[in-house]
Amino acid sequence: MTKGILYGVGVGPGDAELMTVKARRVIRESDVIAVPRADMGEQTALAIAADCVGDKPVLRCDMPMTRDKAARDTAHDRAADEICALLDAGKRVAFLTLGDPTIYATYWYVHKRVAARGYPTEIVPGVPSFCAAAARTGRALCMDGEPLHIIPASHGAAARGLALPGGKVLMKAGKGILDVRDALAAQGQLANAVLVERCGMEGERIVTDLAQLGDPTGYFSIILVRAEGNTD
Amino acid sequence: MTKGILYGVGVGPGDAELMTVKARRVIRESDVIAVPRADMGEQTALAIAADCVGDKPVLRCDMPMTRDKAARDTAHDRAADEICALLDAGKRVAFLTLGDPTIYATYWYVHKRVAARGYPTEIVPGVPSFCAAAARTGRALCMDGEPLHIIPASHGAAARGLALPGGKVLMKAGKGILDVRDALAAQGQLANAVLVERCGMEGERIVTDLAQLGDPTGYFSIILVRAEGNTD
Repeated sequence: MTKGILYGVGVGPGDAELMTVKARRVIRESDVIAVPRADMGEQTALAIAADCVGDKPVLRCDMPMTRDKAARDTAHDRAADEICALLDAGKRVAFLTLGDPTIYATYWYVHKRVAARGYPTEIVPGVPSFCAAAARTGRALCMDGEPLHIIPASHGAAARGLALPGGKVLMKAGKGILDVRDALAAQGQLANAVLVERCGMEGERIVTDLAQLGDPTGYFSIILVRAEGNTD
Repeated sequence: MTKGILYGVGVGPGDAELMTVKARRVIRESDVIAVPRADMGEQTALAIAADCVGDKPVLRCDMPMTRDKAARDTAHDRAADEICALLDAGKRVAFLTLGDPTIYATYWYVHKRVAARGYPTEIVPGVPSFCAAAARTGRALCMDGEPLHIIPASHGAAARGLALPGGKVLMKAGKGILDVRDALAAQGQLANAVLVERCGMEGERIVTDLAQLGDPTGYFSIILVRAEGNTD
């Protein structure tokens, strides 16, 4: 029997047309589609890829968004067990992730377990959400000698990261977005910033004047901050 | 007459299958394809998109890789003039860039000029080269609360950037790659690093032991450096 393979497939930022040709082919050629259960992001990944997924069986893996490491480890071990059982049966499994699978993807916890057990794996890269947000707002993320810092704002790192020279992308601010806004204001960088929510998805919103932001927003928010002196 | 439009189209990192569905459609629907003249990177962009470009007319814009700002400005103004003349004639122009158009793309100099003159423009995001390099080497770029720093190594910023906590992507090291390797060694980060050259293109090379690197490499080199303590 052919041995199965696990594909980690980036489906891009939201617009189905921003999937790569390879992502579409790999999904179509897979036997089983895997996504995390009850994770808002990955339900979206399934919707983005819907026309390639068709009526293929969908494995929903428990991947809790908790800081309890033991609980996460248990869930990730179980997801790896379920996927390895499919691979042992010769199945090709495509695990869908929003954006790119190597950038803040919970998928990676499953990937490294399955790879460590010696199963074949392949990553299919995708367009990251911050590239789509930059495109949507007509801004360059970085030019010439400028560094670009991708900062997970939900982990309290926003204020530290904002002090770095270069462009910044603040991801996963979530309900802490007003704190991030205040950190931007404190550093005099509010005028350099723009917020994009649900880029390319239904309910997309672009906020160019963050001082006017009243309500905390959801999971799919990205703040782009220009490098000082960059007017691109 | 319909007014023309300028598309900045990311064709991804090298593998034609990593183009997005949208990039392929926009190129096919365009009247003229623009690329920089005599720029190794963008000739490659034309090769990646060859089957969508077909026999469409190709505009080769002079975009010198010089630090002489006046010479660059003159060249970029002229490229913008040429493109705007096509837009005035109602043409749809697709300017191809390797990777993503918002990340270190010389295209941006033309984009901002054309946009500033009031012409319609649209950016089509693409898969950045560093996502493909991470996929190819089976590494996550960043997880959880780790920041990710994209650093243009050709501008002498490598040593400063390497001291930051989090994952790093060192781009455009070019012939300075041995200096970057020495900076990595000096900071004890050699074991965390991997080099990918010409990812997904002919002549691809992956160097996992940078201590063994003897010869300076070309333009398409990317070094990925794991965050300390990250074994993903």
